[in-house]
Amino acid sequence: MEKLEQLYEGKAKKVFKTDEPELYIVDYKDDATALNGLKKGTIHNKGIINNRVTNHLMKLLEADGVPTHFVEELSDRETLVKKVTIIPLEVIVRNIAAGSLSKRLGLPEGAKLQSTVLEFCYKDDALGDPMVNEYHIAALGVATKEELGKIAEYSFHVNRFLTDYLKDVGIELIDFKLEFGKTTDGTIVLADEISPDTCRFWDSKTHEKLDKDRFRRDMGGEEDAYKEIMKRLLGE
Amino acid sequence: MEKLEQLYEGKAKKVFKTDEPELYIVDYKDDATALNGLKKGTIHNKGIINNRVTNHLMKLLEADGVPTHFVEELSDRETLVKKVTIIPLEVIVRNIAAGSLSKRLGLPEGAKLQSTVLEFCYKDDALGDPMVNEYHIAALGVATKEELGKIAEYSFHVNRFLTDYLKDVGIELIDFKLEFGKTTDGTIVLADEISPDTCRFWDSKTHEKLDKDRFRRDMGGEEDAYKEIMKRLLGE
Repeated sequence: MEKLEQLYEGKAKKVFKTDEPELYIVDYKDDATALNGLKKGTIHNKGIINNRVTNHLMKLLEADGVPTHFVEELSDRETLVKKVTIIPLEVIVRNIAAGSLSKRLGLPEGAKLQSTVLEFCYKDDALGDPMVNEYHIAALGVATKEELGKIAEYSFHVNRFLTDYLKDVGIELIDFKLEFGKTTDGTIVLADEISPDTCRFWDSKTHEKLDKDRFRRDMGGEEDAYKEIMKRLLGE
Repeated sequence: MEKLEQLYEGKAKKVFKTDEPELYIVDYKDDATALNGLKKGTIHNKGIINNRVTNHLMKLLEADGVPTHFVEELSDRETLVKKVTIIPLEVIVRNIAAGSLSKRLGLPEGAKLQSTVLEFCYKDDALGDPMVNEYHIAALGVATKEELGKIAEYSFHVNRFLTDYLKDVGIELIDFKLEFGKTTDGTIVLADEISPDTCRFWDSKTHEKLDKDRFRRDMGGEEDAYKEIMKRLLGE
């Protein structure tokens, strides 16, 4: 597999073409951003941890029945994935109130939600990734009703699976963000990453934050938190 | 029917108890507010126009199968309505992009939406009436799934009916806000008002705004616009 020209550089990853038209290579960076790009920094070895944690979880999810873009881990920071067109939605699943939800609805951070909340944000930096609902998504032509139904079904599936899986290693899954893509044949698959960048992980006992909130909120200790997640999930 | 103590004073209306426990009296004011209460003013005779226009439309909708809180018009500004507990949601129906939707999604004002958009905002002044989706509504315990289904069904019904009805008098229905209440026996009914305060009405030919946007945006001519709506709908 040959790594060809770079297609895209995002905040945390680069994507490259390969000599196989239906395969891309994702390359994870240590760059960290927050507050819609206003805050910038580096978390040492974040790229390695996010690559390996994401692949570990994607493999488990694929085996549990959620189609993903994962093909093969190539190196510490590089992974071969299916070529997909990303559906421009941030799909957020919330079990416990935190972050923007706490602020918007006036709920104390840590409050258990009566039922799981699914949110969609329209990925558009210039607009600030505004929250949208199923009707906006249809009116914008972002996804069909059937596609959105699949996305919701997979998101709840990921939530059930990860909540149980993480409980066993002493992590409470507060909320997380997913992205989905469409392969050339139109199949919806889980794409992007599942990592401390995109999830809120709290230690089940101490409620200590083991995720990017340590960076976003200038709490310090983000490198140790990311390492701790890798250790609990991969034993390293 | 005796008008007893005032229960509530809102931005545009007062609500009074009556000697019938299941009936309230609504009294429409000329006060106008915008920008979450930051802008304040008066639109001469707005209370009379909104009361009469609302009752006219509620009667038509009730006859077309949408249950409403309307009982009887008592005077130019006063109407007898069923006692309801208001469900704390602003239900917004949009046919054409305008106002906050245009800003949030970067759509030019006046752009036809590919499909009708339904939005819910959680009525909470302190939080600034944040947009919520069906999952937030369930998690907050604001309405059950069944209640929300009824609300969506009635809202689309109101949209279809009003769009056709207004077309005949040369008015394009851009968007509007509804509120629903629950009667003592648990029935969901359309409540609040349907008026130039709560709808965007554009002249079908000239696209002139015939609604509260004239006040919100300091365009002037709001009194004439409200009178024009009354004239087209009630012939007076």
